[in-house]
Amino acid sequence: MNAKKIAAERAVDYIKDGMIVGLGTGSTAYWAIEKIGAKVREGLNIKAVATSLRSEEQARKLGIKLIPFSEIDKIDITIDGADEVDQDLNLIKGGGGALLREKIVAAASRQLIIVVDESKMVDKLGAFPLPVEMVKFGYEITVRKLQSLGCEPVLRKVDNDTYITDNGNFIVDCHFKRIDNPSELHNKINMIPGVVDNGLFINMAAKVIIGYNNGDIKELI
Amino acid sequence: MNAKKIAAERAVDYIKDGMIVGLGTGSTAYWAIEKIGAKVREGLNIKAVATSLRSEEQARKLGIKLIPFSEIDKIDITIDGADEVDQDLNLIKGGGGALLREKIVAAASRQLIIVVDESKMVDKLGAFPLPVEMVKFGYEITVRKLQSLGCEPVLRKVDNDTYITDNGNFIVDCHFKRIDNPSELHNKINMIPGVVDNGLFINMAAKVIIGYNNGDIKELI
Repeated sequence: MNAKKIAAERAVDYIKDGMIVGLGTGSTAYWAIEKIGAKVREGLNIKAVATSLRSEEQARKLGIKLIPFSEIDKIDITIDGADEVDQDLNLIKGGGGALLREKIVAAASRQLIIVVDESKMVDKLGAFPLPVEMVKFGYEITVRKLQSLGCEPVLRKVDNDTYITDNGNFIVDCHFKRIDNPSELHNKINMIPGVVDNGLFINMAAKVIIGYNNGDIKELI
Repeated sequence: MNAKKIAAERAVDYIKDGMIVGLGTGSTAYWAIEKIGAKVREGLNIKAVATSLRSEEQARKLGIKLIPFSEIDKIDITIDGADEVDQDLNLIKGGGGALLREKIVAAASRQLIIVVDESKMVDKLGAFPLPVEMVKFGYEITVRKLQSLGCEPVLRKVDNDTYITDNGNFIVDCHFKRIDNPSELHNKINMIPGVVDNGLFINMAAKVIIGYNNGDIKELI
């Protein structure tokens, strides 16, 4: 049983005719987009905005109507994955590098539904390294300020090149091991000049749908 | 009497042999850099980092030794201008568009000395529109979130083109008219996903040197 797929397909049940839908990015959001495509072929009438080029292309191939961000006032539902989820529905996202666009879309959404398989559920966030997006200028000093918050920061590379986000910035993956106060840490990191945003999503998810390998589905609200 | 020039030159008195100096940007910082150049010719031994290409070029022509940001741990003194200064030494900066680099350098400095002429001193910040730097993606929604904080936001243009910062972002000038709680507003704005930083500098200036048109100089600490 594909735990990601069953959770993603359950999330799509919340999408109703006439909605504006935010499309997440990653291996779980992939299954949600596939299912939305199937429903659109069956007559579901929605418009979508995507958080990445990859999701945009997938949606286009499936015949999902895409609209630019500039044309909308509010998104009704966004379905996206996460790298870690705690019991308070706080998240770490950004392993795939799209954290800022995902957060902008999430913040513009009436309802953010997170879909994950059971492996992403944790008691405390932080085993997954927290991605921090920062401007290139002076990043060495920005990295040192992150380090002083108690993590081991690693500049993200792809092969031997420094990874560059869609917004032209660097990502530093911060190994905290365990984050005791995610809300406080989120604010402290975003107050560092040079930091654009970080992968902590605090009080943003309205619902988390967890898929289990045995076929069970659980919803946290 | 050039009020900007006399204040800037007084600030340079605080620079001592062996220091690493941050060079600001703008019409007042210009005079500080000129004076530093004169002192370097007389034998002052310092290294400098610049907040803009313009200041870098000015320094190079004057024979000031420039080092990259990556080579330093801490800046001893940064001298920079401001668009507005209140009695608590809080500032609005960024009229020139370099607010983020200026803030990164300021945050890495042991001492930030602000030099202004008397026209920049205000009881309450906010008559000068507050510059907010934001990523391009979804900026329409980011702008609406700024608006909900009580300002009239205007996307900065140069001639008919949208202004782009050195970091590849947009600037939106937010007309608040009067900012009653600069610290709270600073944090609220920076928590909006898509915002990179804003022009409020809270508790960052160690000293403000004010030049008066009659030749007087006043220091606020």
